[in-house]
Amino acid sequence: MTGQMEIICVGNELLIGKTLNTNAHWMTKRATSLGMMVKRITIISDDVDEIAKAVCEALQRKPRFLITTGGLGPTFDDKTLEGIAKALSKKLEVNEKALEMVKEKYETFQKQGRIEKVEMTPARVKMATLPKGTEPLHNPIGTAPAVLAEIKGTVLIALPGVPSEMEAIFEESIAPLLKKEAGNVTFFETSIYADSIFESTLAPLIDETMRSNPYVYIKSHPRGEEKVPHIELHFSTTAEDSKTAKDRLEKAIIQLSDLIERNGGKIRPKKKT
Amino acid sequence: MTGQMEIICVGNELLIGKTLNTNAHWMTKRATSLGMMVKRITIISDDVDEIAKAVCEALQRKPRFLITTGGLGPTFDDKTLEGIAKALSKKLEVNEKALEMVKEKYETFQKQGRIEKVEMTPARVKMATLPKGTEPLHNPIGTAPAVLAEIKGTVLIALPGVPSEMEAIFEESIAPLLKKEAGNVTFFETSIYADSIFESTLAPLIDETMRSNPYVYIKSHPRGEEKVPHIELHFSTTAEDSKTAKDRLEKAIIQLSDLIERNGGKIRPKKKT
Repeated sequence: MTGQMEIICVGNELLIGKTLNTNAHWMTKRATSLGMMVKRITIISDDVDEIAKAVCEALQRKPRFLITTGGLGPTFDDKTLEGIAKALSKKLEVNEKALEMVKEKYETFQKQGRIEKVEMTPARVKMATLPKGTEPLHNPIGTAPAVLAEIKGTVLIALPGVPSEMEAIFEESIAPLLKKEAGNVTFFETSIYADSIFESTLAPLIDETMRSNPYVYIKSHPRGEEKVPHIELHFSTTAEDSKTAKDRLEKAIIQLSDLIERNGGKIRPKKKT
Repeated sequence: MTGQMEIICVGNELLIGKTLNTNAHWMTKRATSLGMMVKRITIISDDVDEIAKAVCEALQRKPRFLITTGGLGPTFDDKTLEGIAKALSKKLEVNEKALEMVKEKYETFQKQGRIEKVEMTPARVKMATLPKGTEPLHNPIGTAPAVLAEIKGTVLIALPGVPSEMEAIFEESIAPLLKKEAGNVTFFETSIYADSIFESTLAPLIDETMRSNPYVYIKSHPRGEEKVPHIELHFSTTAEDSKTAKDRLEKAIIQLSDLIERNGGKIRPKKKT
């Protein structure tokens, strides 16, 4: 079995429809490609109790990785670390290593002539105030460090919400951990498209193909505009090598394509334009 | 207080990074504009137990509305109604009203010459098989009806995952319910942009402005590319009439703009291009 992961996205902007959650999309795609299985994404507001509850609930489900995004910055509504501290029953304290990381950023700004002197204001110290016993992770782009904690078999990592920072820290510090966890297991996927056949007619054909191809998952996605059926058939599998995966997918695609054509549908390898 | 809502999105495609969750984005925006407060979004796979668990957990938090998207179609992996039935300890049974709705769709297809005869195959009957005691809702675009249930103060509604169908049913059957619940309460928002000032410098200025404007919520979103600070300041409030809301936002914007300029920042009303 592949390693399991949960994601918690923190931010009012995600709950009022201001911001499209591209972070969850990017991270699920990247983690899946590294062989991980994302089991759940939870999106909550900038509220300490909501964050603490969501973290506690996720930890009870014992994923191998629990990754949060958002809420690490200097403002009053950056509450993720406070929420995590509450969930873990840990105190918040200034972490010397994190403080050094934040200070270095402002020292660079000073060298660049962008600030006159390096002042560690409360808002700046806040970014280095972590739940006791957690580790700061280097942020190659922004100011606030990410945070890592190990809790009874779960690796909990808090990432910033700014996409460029989130992605940079993920690649630098998290991708290697996920890769190690997943070993050689990798996820493969491909799609074909079926025209002139209803999804309800396809349903038993997909069932039949999946029964003969137990390691292949097939999901249909209607893509047609109003009255013209146009259905994407998405094939996926998880395997230890690409040849096994490709052979599996190919066998299932040939079988389902044949069934569809015998039932009056048409197959096209690419999306209709 | 405004009415509270939770959303559960069902679909493996959302957990492997195949599909960007535009449904949650659209629905949160629309529900917020109608005066509702979305408290949580949960995204889970096409798995009966996962769906049942997520529904049970959400019901325990007693939102006024719980809306699911996805998993109502004819294929084996459309499992939302099975999951809801399990959560509510109800049996699944063919709902006569729903069966009529599905049948009518295929009768229309027959009249259009797209199918020879109307056959109610198991895959088609599946779309009319609902948890006992629930109500089908008309789907103006697709085949599968949506489903409504009332559970101890929570209105639970299951919508399809195809965006055009989800949106059409939302506008036809759900928006009027939300509007009635929210009364005149409406959500107002606007943004200004600050340049040449760090988010950490802004933080105490935002705090000060929010203390003087208790009904206004201000959130900063860094939008700068790498080394140039460019920060969106998002102001929002919930009020019973637009004049109150606009006056509140204006007062807060004037105060914060003044504080920012006194601290060396520059204000621009529009996003930098």
